[in-house]
Amino acid sequence: MKIVLIGAGNLAGHLGPALKKNGHSIEMVYSRSKGSAKKLAANLKCAFTSKVTDLPTEADLYLLALPDHVIPGFLKELSFIPACIAHTSGSVELSVFRTRFKNCGVFYPLQTFSKNRKVDFKNIPICLEASNPKTLALLKKAAAISKNVVRMNSAKRKKVHLTAVIVNNFPNLLFSLADDLLKEEKLNLDLLRPLILETALKVQNNPPFQMQTGPARRGDAETLKSHRKLLSDNKTVKDIYNLLSKTIENKYGPLL
Amino acid sequence: MKIVLIGAGNLAGHLGPALKKNGHSIEMVYSRSKGSAKKLAANLKCAFTSKVTDLPTEADLYLLALPDHVIPGFLKELSFIPACIAHTSGSVELSVFRTRFKNCGVFYPLQTFSKNRKVDFKNIPICLEASNPKTLALLKKAAAISKNVVRMNSAKRKKVHLTAVIVNNFPNLLFSLADDLLKEEKLNLDLLRPLILETALKVQNNPPFQMQTGPARRGDAETLKSHRKLLSDNKTVKDIYNLLSKTIENKYGPLL
Repeated sequence: MKIVLIGAGNLAGHLGPALKKNGHSIEMVYSRSKGSAKKLAANLKCAFTSKVTDLPTEADLYLLALPDHVIPGFLKELSFIPACIAHTSGSVELSVFRTRFKNCGVFYPLQTFSKNRKVDFKNIPICLEASNPKTLALLKKAAAISKNVVRMNSAKRKKVHLTAVIVNNFPNLLFSLADDLLKEEKLNLDLLRPLILETALKVQNNPPFQMQTGPARRGDAETLKSHRKLLSDNKTVKDIYNLLSKTIENKYGPLL
Repeated sequence: MKIVLIGAGNLAGHLGPALKKNGHSIEMVYSRSKGSAKKLAANLKCAFTSKVTDLPTEADLYLLALPDHVIPGFLKELSFIPACIAHTSGSVELSVFRTRFKNCGVFYPLQTFSKNRKVDFKNIPICLEASNPKTLALLKKAAAISKNVVRMNSAKRKKVHLTAVIVNNFPNLLFSLADDLLKEEKLNLDLLRPLILETALKVQNNPPFQMQTGPARRGDAETLKSHRKLLSDNKTVKDIYNLLSKTIENKYGPLL
């Protein structure tokens, strides 16, 4: 397929090479930032532009890897109707394309993308939604970069995006808060890094419900009390500690 | 060294083989449960007992891998004073040994141990505390199974244990809550497993503060609102969502 990449951020930077490797032709990279477009285009050996009016009109798929709030504005600027257009957002509804774009869809890869980390798209679930069977078939061709492709509507995808926040953004915040506490003791997060990794590895093959451990899980009131005491001057972490411990206690019920 | 293992749970089950592999001799395994003691002893090809009075009195090190609340009772039952005795708990103070056991210490491996998962002790930080230099030297010999050994007192270790709860128990709860939400949609946690793993891998070489992403981080009020709406019937997750999102917003300040 001939694909035009709209966006040159982390996601586009990972998606472009993966699509190219799978035999697709990246026709052009667009970004409001000419520098970003140029850099990614150099990597993909394709054309680039920072002007919507310069986009080729004959490509098979226009893939939007843009920040959520920029999507409506970009669509307004687009003066032609592409053969097929899709965005990659977890939380933007398909209806953003309104009735103007007949062949439209969503291509949402469920992963966190960073500049300096390679990811293997084979292992990244891709959630698809399409306005019609023809568009779905076309998006499936692009999604063949992953071995886990799931079709779902906008409401379901929004809920999945919420769970992604819960397992990615929130644990990362907790790592950051733990890092702060260690720094107070002049200790380094390296102390916890193996534990952080093992925690994630454990649930790769096990249900997290069964993997739960810790003072709240075993009803260890003494340890809970002593942790709260350590946090008496840190309202932020104390509130989080109390709420999450209470949630664990409620989830597992009293130990007998 | 001649080591007696007190306890036959997950930690003892991992610690015993690692110590043996490093050239130490496991003299005996003790557990209140004869079955557990027998099973681990068979694995270590050593003696076992469920009676405190049967313990050999001449070993170099008695290593307690017992639940926190059981430690004081076990020490009371012990009718002789070992050459050296140490517990493996993050939150029990060295003073649990009181003045009775002169050569006492703490040997706290910072990891989560499960029955069916192999762990490489080389990568597991071990926190040491000892009542005197001779005991410290002896514990260091045992701790040579790890390449990351850190000396710290009971107060510091308790804080480290608190951070371990924050990066292990709490993220696992979040995985479990996300799993529940996916089940409501008849979806599987496999959708999130690659994301969970990547989240942990990202902070292995980066400070979590710099890795933070998500709607709260970028001040995306619309997504935050739509997630809250999705959780309107789920007070437990909504409270957690609000508290952690607010904490991220406060940590990074308003985006300009």
